[in-house]
Amino acid sequence: MTYLTRLDSRVAAVGSCLCLGLDPDPAALPRGFAPDVQGIESFARVLLEAAAGQAAAVKINVAFFEAFGSAGIAALERVRAAIPADLPLIADAKRADISNTAARQAVALFDTLGADAVTANPYLGRDALAPFLEHGDRFVYVLCRTSNPGGAELQNQPLADGAPLFVHVARRAVEWAGDADNVGLVVGATAPRELREIRDAAPGLPCLVPGIGAQGGDVDAVLAAGSATAPPGNSVRGGALLVNVSRGISQAARDREGHEAVVEAISEAATMWAARLQC
Amino acid sequence: MTYLTRLDSRVAAVGSCLCLGLDPDPAALPRGFAPDVQGIESFARVLLEAAAGQAAAVKINVAFFEAFGSAGIAALERVRAAIPADLPLIADAKRADISNTAARQAVALFDTLGADAVTANPYLGRDALAPFLEHGDRFVYVLCRTSNPGGAELQNQPLADGAPLFVHVARRAVEWAGDADNVGLVVGATAPRELREIRDAAPGLPCLVPGIGAQGGDVDAVLAAGSATAPPGNSVRGGALLVNVSRGISQAARDREGHEAVVEAISEAATMWAARLQC
Repeated sequence: MTYLTRLDSRVAAVGSCLCLGLDPDPAALPRGFAPDVQGIESFARVLLEAAAGQAAAVKINVAFFEAFGSAGIAALERVRAAIPADLPLIADAKRADISNTAARQAVALFDTLGADAVTANPYLGRDALAPFLEHGDRFVYVLCRTSNPGGAELQNQPLADGAPLFVHVARRAVEWAGDADNVGLVVGATAPRELREIRDAAPGLPCLVPGIGAQGGDVDAVLAAGSATAPPGNSVRGGALLVNVSRGISQAARDREGHEAVVEAISEAATMWAARLQC
Repeated sequence: MTYLTRLDSRVAAVGSCLCLGLDPDPAALPRGFAPDVQGIESFARVLLEAAAGQAAAVKINVAFFEAFGSAGIAALERVRAAIPADLPLIADAKRADISNTAARQAVALFDTLGADAVTANPYLGRDALAPFLEHGDRFVYVLCRTSNPGGAELQNQPLADGAPLFVHVARRAVEWAGDADNVGLVVGATAPRELREIRDAAPGLPCLVPGIGAQGGDVDAVLAAGSATAPPGNSVRGGALLVNVSRGISQAARDREGHEAVVEAISEAATMWAARLQC
């Protein structure tokens, strides 16, 4: 079963294109969680307990675990083990490197961590992603137009043919995908105009859309650029957008205290977002 | 003391611009080393024992440790602790992300691991590097023209103004550096023509040059594009190239067996490369 098949099944089961983002920032935990590796692990587990049931996928931002060194990665491995088998895991690590190094990156994320999908950076070209692409049952979301304020700095640079760099990347990603269905694109919700251009340039590629909520992305503008009512996988090529919400869910519990109150606040926020992203 | 000051001191002490690359690949260890996390840690320690004395800096390719999960990062932390304080450590991790994530990446590499410098990917723009740049005593080598066969695929794309993307990145990196001296560029030895263009576009930026040896980069073509006789740091802005050799040293011991024979082969290879890169 390919990643997109597994994702489609999960979308059908939960009826939503919500991707639950786990970015446990020690500086932004609810009261009662220590700002250390135990605190971020506990909070990640609470997020899964309260919100995973409503999510089509989980995206873990590995840097929040890497910051604590080997102890952080051990915590990441335990959190990964707590994710249900039918809930696809995206390792948001933005990797890519020369081939022998990229091969080890793929081992780290696909084999050792057991991620179903990864995010990857296109700057080094296709061969720097090849070891990821060779895993046909996994998936690679290629950064196309990122959600950060400076995303446009390089990505919107016009090339000699008039198209901005991000459109060029979208077109290359179509080539990199070929006949396989294991390539998609990352397009920030903060760039809805670019999202429409990318959907036109690469209508067959599924998109992962971060940047909703804390980063200022508007969900209505995003959904105008891509149905949330088609499966995100290959039953409709390109399908719906998989929309990530991280702080929009985790920060709902910021001022709560006690396990029950924190779970309740997160669950409410996840339910609201899952409904907004119904499909 | 800035990184470049520390690097200059080390270059003066060893008389070479050789950067020792630690990319311990379990599939390419000398006989007697197991293809597991203990094997790569042992081999990394042997590389340091045999070659660190001749090197101006050490570059650790963190993916080779990440592939073993938390046990790999624990090994990386022990290897890092074995690197002498006067030998600058470059964490080759090619990071960059939206700001709250990049902040955690900087904590992981600068604070937790204790790297003196990192490699970073420019695709997300300046703000995705800001948390790294804010560490004025550390250093960021921005990927400009990478050494992999597909490096040209995106990086040599001409922009609307006629300049290829890698030249645009070099120019942006000059702006990102401003008056600080904590930004440099990664330029592969496999692209000597591009290296010359980059040295012209950004004469003030120090360059880290991987790709010599196993990847096919020619050291004479590289040195023609940048003196190896000036300090790499800020005593001459831009200075010399810091030239990385990984497999060219580590593979010298491929067919040796026994600690002494392995150390001898590596030490000989490091001595040869240090002399080729005399400065």
